[in-house]
Amino acid sequence: MFKKRENIAEIEEGKLLSPKFDNDGLIPVVTVCTNTKDVLMHGYMNVEALKKTIETKEAHYWSRSRKQIWHKGKVSGFAQKVVELRIDDDQDAVWLTVDIGKGSSCHVGYRSCFYRSIPLGKIDNARQIEMKFEEKEKSFDPEKIYKGEPNPTKI
Amino acid sequence: MFKKRENIAEIEEGKLLSPKFDNDGLIPVVTVCTNTKDVLMHGYMNVEALKKTIETKEAHYWSRSRKQIWHKGKVSGFAQKVVELRIDDDQDAVWLTVDIGKGSSCHVGYRSCFYRSIPLGKIDNARQIEMKFEEKEKSFDPEKIYKGEPNPTKI
Repeated sequence: MFKKRENIAEIEEGKLLSPKFDNDGLIPVVTVCTNTKDVLMHGYMNVEALKKTIETKEAHYWSRSRKQIWHKGKVSGFAQKVVELRIDDDQDAVWLTVDIGKGSSCHVGYRSCFYRSIPLGKIDNARQIEMKFEEKEKSFDPEKIYKGEPNPTKI
Repeated sequence: MFKKRENIAEIEEGKLLSPKFDNDGLIPVVTVCTNTKDVLMHGYMNVEALKKTIETKEAHYWSRSRKQIWHKGKVSGFAQKVVELRIDDDQDAVWLTVDIGKGSSCHVGYRSCFYRSIPLGKIDNARQIEMKFEEKEKSFDPEKIYKGEPNPTKI
C-alpha cells in the first residue's frame, strides 16, 4: 500500500511516506488541538484509517474496542478537521493537528482525554497517588450524546 | 505497584493513578515541548520508567530497541525536565510536557522527531507520497553526539 521500508537512511531522511505498522497492523497517533495546543487524545490507525484521514482531511482511527474503522465524530458530531499530519523519524508514530471548533474529544465528556495531572516528586505509596483534575467541568453530557453506545474503556 | 484497576468509573472519574500497561508492560507517552508546544517524540514507559519520571522529574522511557530503561539525555546531554505529566481517560496513555531548553529530542539531529509533514488530499499512488521537511536544518550532529551508539530505527 505505502512505500516498502527498505533502508534506514530512506526511512529517516527520505521524502517518501513509508509508515511502520505494529504486529496488530496499527500505528499510534497523537492528536493535538490546533487552537489550544492541548493533546486531545492518543489513538491508533491502520492502513485504511491513515489513508482515509489523508484523503478526507477528517480524522479516522482504528477502534481497538469495537474492532472497526472509527470516523471520529460520526456518533458525537465532534469531527476532527485535519490541519496538519506529521510522522516521526522512524515513521512509526503520527502527530495529527486538528480543528474541533467548540467541540470535544473525550468520550467521558471533557474537551481533552488528558484531563488529569499526576503529581511529581517522591512517591510514598504508589497505590495512593492522587491526581488533580485540570478540566473542572465536562463540556458535554456523554449519556445524552452516546446513549446506548458501549463504553470503550476496559479494565 | 500502582492502584489496581477495579472498575471503570474509578478509572475514568477517580483521582487515583491506576495506569494500564499493555501486554509488553508498556504505556505510550506523548512528549510535548513546553515552549514551542511541538510534539517532540512518541515513546513508551514501563512501571519503573514512569516511577522514575515522577520521582526524579526527568523523563525516563523504556527503550524497545535496547530493551532497557532509558534516561533521556544520558548520552546526548539533552535531558527533559518534566513540567507536567497527565494521563488520559482510561489511563492507558501519558502526556508529558517537558523543558529541553535549547536542546533537541530526535536522534536524527532535529529538534522534534516529527520533522516531516504528510500532504493531504487524494492519493494517486500511495507508494509515492512525498513529504515536506518542516524543520530545515538539524540542530546537532548525531554522528558527533552518538558516536558508536547503535541506531534505534529498525526497518
